Amino acid sequence: MEINRRNFMKKATIAGLTTVAFTAPAASEPVTVQKSKKKSVPAPTDRIRTGFIGVGNRGQGHLRTCLAMSSADIVSICDISERSLSAAKKLISESNHPEPKVYTGNDFAYLEMLAKEDLDAVIISTPWEWHTRMAVASMKSGAYTGVEVPAATTLDECWDLVNTHEETGVNLMFLENANYDRSFLAILNMVRQDIFSELLHCRCGYLHDLRGVKFNDGIEYDYVPGHPLKFGKEAYAEAQWRGLHSIRRNGDVYPTHGIGPVAKALDINNGNRFLSLSSFATKARGLKKYVDDYGGANHPLAKIQWNCGDIVTSTINCANGETILVTHNCNNPRPHIGDFMVQGTKGLWHEDWKSIYVENQSPVKDAYEADEKWIEKFNHKYWREEGESAAGSGHGGIDYMVLNDFFKAVKENKPAPIDVYDAAAWSAISALSEMSISKGNAPVDFPDFTRGQWIKYRDEKTFASDDKFPMLADRFIKY
Amino acid sequence: MEINRRNFMKKATIAGLTTVAFTAPAASEPVTVQKSKKKSVPAPTDRIRTGFIGVGNRGQGHLRTCLAMSSADIVSICDISERSLSAAKKLISESNHPEPKVYTGNDFAYLEMLAKEDLDAVIISTPWEWHTRMAVASMKSGAYTGVEVPAATTLDECWDLVNTHEETGVNLMFLENANYDRSFLAILNMVRQDIFSELLHCRCGYLHDLRGVKFNDGIEYDYVPGHPLKFGKEAYAEAQWRGLHSIRRNGDVYPTHGIGPVAKALDINNGNRFLSLSSFATKARGLKKYVDDYGGANHPLAKIQWNCGDIVTSTINCANGETILVTHNCNNPRPHIGDFMVQGTKGLWHEDWKSIYVENQSPVKDAYEADEKWIEKFNHKYWREEGESAAGSGHGGIDYMVLNDFFKAVKENKPAPIDVYDAAAWSAISALSEMSISKGNAPVDFPDFTRGQWIKYRDEKTFASDDKFPMLADRFIKY
Repeated sequence: MEINRRNFMKKATIAGLTTVAFTAPAASEPVTVQKSKKKSVPAPTDRIRTGFIGVGNRGQGHLRTCLAMSSADIVSICDISERSLSAAKKLISESNHPEPKVYTGNDFAYLEMLAKEDLDAVIISTPWEWHTRMAVASMKSGAYTGVEVPAATTLDECWDLVNTHEETGVNLMFLENANYDRSFLAILNMVRQDIFSELLHCRCGYLHDLRGVKFNDGIEYDYVPGHPLKFGKEAYAEAQWRGLHSIRRNGDVYPTHGIGPVAKALDINNGNRFLSLSSFATKARGLKKYVDDYGGANHPLAKIQWNCGDIVTSTINCANGETILVTHNCNNPRPHIGDFMVQGTKGLWHEDWKSIYVENQSPVKDAYEADEKWIEKFNHKYWREEGESAAGSGHGGIDYMVLNDFFKAVKENKPAPIDVYDAAAWSAISALSEMSISKGNAPVDFPDFTRGQWIKYRDEKTFASDDKFPMLADRFIKY
Repeated sequence: MEINRRNFMKKATIAGLTTVAFTAPAASEPVTVQKSKKKSVPAPTDRIRTGFIGVGNRGQGHLRTCLAMSSADIVSICDISERSLSAAKKLISESNHPEPKVYTGNDFAYLEMLAKEDLDAVIISTPWEWHTRMAVASMKSGAYTGVEVPAATTLDECWDLVNTHEETGVNLMFLENANYDRSFLAILNMVRQDIFSELLHCRCGYLHDLRGVKFNDGIEYDYVPGHPLKFGKEAYAEAQWRGLHSIRRNGDVYPTHGIGPVAKALDINNGNRFLSLSSFATKARGLKKYVDDYGGANHPLAKIQWNCGDIVTSTINCANGETILVTHNCNNPRPHIGDFMVQGTKGLWHEDWKSIYVENQSPVKDAYEADEKWIEKFNHKYWREEGESAAGSGHGGIDYMVLNDFFKAVKENKPAPIDVYDAAAWSAISALSEMSISKGNAPVDFPDFTRGQWIKYRDEKTFASDDKFPMLADRFIKY
């Protein structure tokens, strides 16, 4: 661990996050500088001194996963909510782990924690609008930074993340658990073994009825009919802030659960990149209707003018000629699906319907078959080796998988498997979709956050590399 | 039947389709002029004198359906292919119907037929690029015109259809059989009974592996591996011309099977309209790969440079705030699906997965149920009353349903259930998608082919009106 640099960062950070003359690589240095730095770093300790910024619902989920792992010490936690802090402390004490230092009292208590604690890793699980500034501060403190999704809500914030990483040489991992889905990792193996041949088109999205979450009074995780509808300061957890993004914004405010897995299948930032995007929004009806239906048309919240279209549909052009459809739909009654579809010139797969077709391999011409045998056959190394450990962790095991990959990267101080460039490119969809919609569905261009490096295959950054299967670069490209 | 007008049109037509002083309403007259005209028309005969332009695969399908019906006399057929004419004549004689008059010999033989025969109805089933000019000539001849899909390939052609209809007062029905799908008509009933409440978003498309059709040597309906790949003049049926649309164009060249049912659910041209569209195309890989795989990389056809992206994704904005996703994908191995999805503020339905969810009605919260019971419960009048007659006709009965509706409209000389404005708006997607793609996915605007009339609910034009269920105008709007 780079203790000296970290201590230096700490001082810079506590001084108020102003610009300082870093000893870290200059902004113009190539991305791979981290790799050479790694060699001069002392061998990592086994125990990772970990701090948590945000221990609400999501932070507590990560806490539970961490406590079940052997690698992390929970040194400190930070939150502004007494309820969240108590729940977190209870989880820790029940696991017979030492009591963590607590930072609280104001929105910027996290800066004090980053300055005072000698942290190897920081996990950020706070409202979306806090992610970037906290991740920037954490990287500046020298701690390997894990940030929840989305990483940023504007293009400037995306650049802040990238610039800070390049200036400090400190890694950020984007904690996109959806990338660790067992089915999707098997499909990734199939993609890399050319089962679908050349990829053409993918679909993905986040289609999940979150109306209950957005009006939750905190008695249960979700709103319960008959309870009072709560929103804003009086409400619980995400209901305090998430709905604001439906009042003030119109775009795909939560794209990364969808785009993450697809981006990795398409080698985005690793020989391919997002070029441009157009977004379309339907009218906004769902949240108003929810208040009318469950609170009555005279409920004070019935007056809210919602801005965000119920269903936002974005189409992305990729440099290699593929297109991607991304859908956001969280304000209407509906089953939760990811709308994942991966299609190549030999076949295609639909996650939600567990259906697959591969030319000359599926038993009936032009008919889907159940994907079960394929998913089993191509089960990813992560799930073969860690499936049992993951069992019981959140979201069907993917919460374990993502933190396991995170702490592995922290221990080896290696580049993040889902890095700051991924965080920026995937999160950028939010801001770009708002721009496109506000411009009458005009196509808008993605920044190239890699500053040209995307064009090369950078094998040390290949997500979820499964030794059994050669990567694209080994199959076709060889450069 | 308006015999006098038809004879007048016939003369105008044979004179070479030049502009003539029609006795029919001027272009500026309102659409509803047909309704008032209808009253002055003599009672229809029972037998409908019908002519066929095009008796290839699709025309023979219509012929079989007609021959099984009691209402139509096949007076004349027209085609340039001896093989098609022989097959058609054989079908007719085997059904013990009188031999039709045959028009052939050159591409414009249909003009002679329209001039010489005293036709009540004409059914056009020819290559796409002939549809508009034939439909225009047919309307000018005074015959109620049924035209296969798509009706037009450019915006000018769309206007030609509309202008001709308005100038002549003669009706055109767009023979979109997909609108008569049993499941979709049941869903239409559900939409009209507000089971899904206010509609927000629909998906649709034409996703069908037509590679075999595009290289067919004519030994079987589809290409058979081992046979020589044929394309263009040497090939059979659609393989003579359909692939050209993949060489010369890049867009959604075949949108109407998808958009038709969705347009009717969304009351397009009947209180709603398409405003604008953006289209995205993937790279073109499928047809080249097909030739490589089945003919070898040295096959002469392997040199073709294909233009049309394998998967074309278009998103449409509607005046009432809904969005529609339309997909075209015909050059890759895949099961045939329509990608139909209809979503409102209370629930949604996916045709391909036979899955539905309706808030507070589906048995498990946030979980799809099989759609079977719903489709049965809301089974449309057409299928309740005509389902047995339809059984055995093409495409699962919808070929019967569409021609049954056509001949019903012809007999009563009433406005077409799928009229010239629908034909224009739905077919316009092709040209608009090409424009959008060529302009870098820019949004492009739909013409309003109704010249402002779309804003009113025109109940005489309501598609598949089922007396049991009130229409939108009777539920909400009342104006």
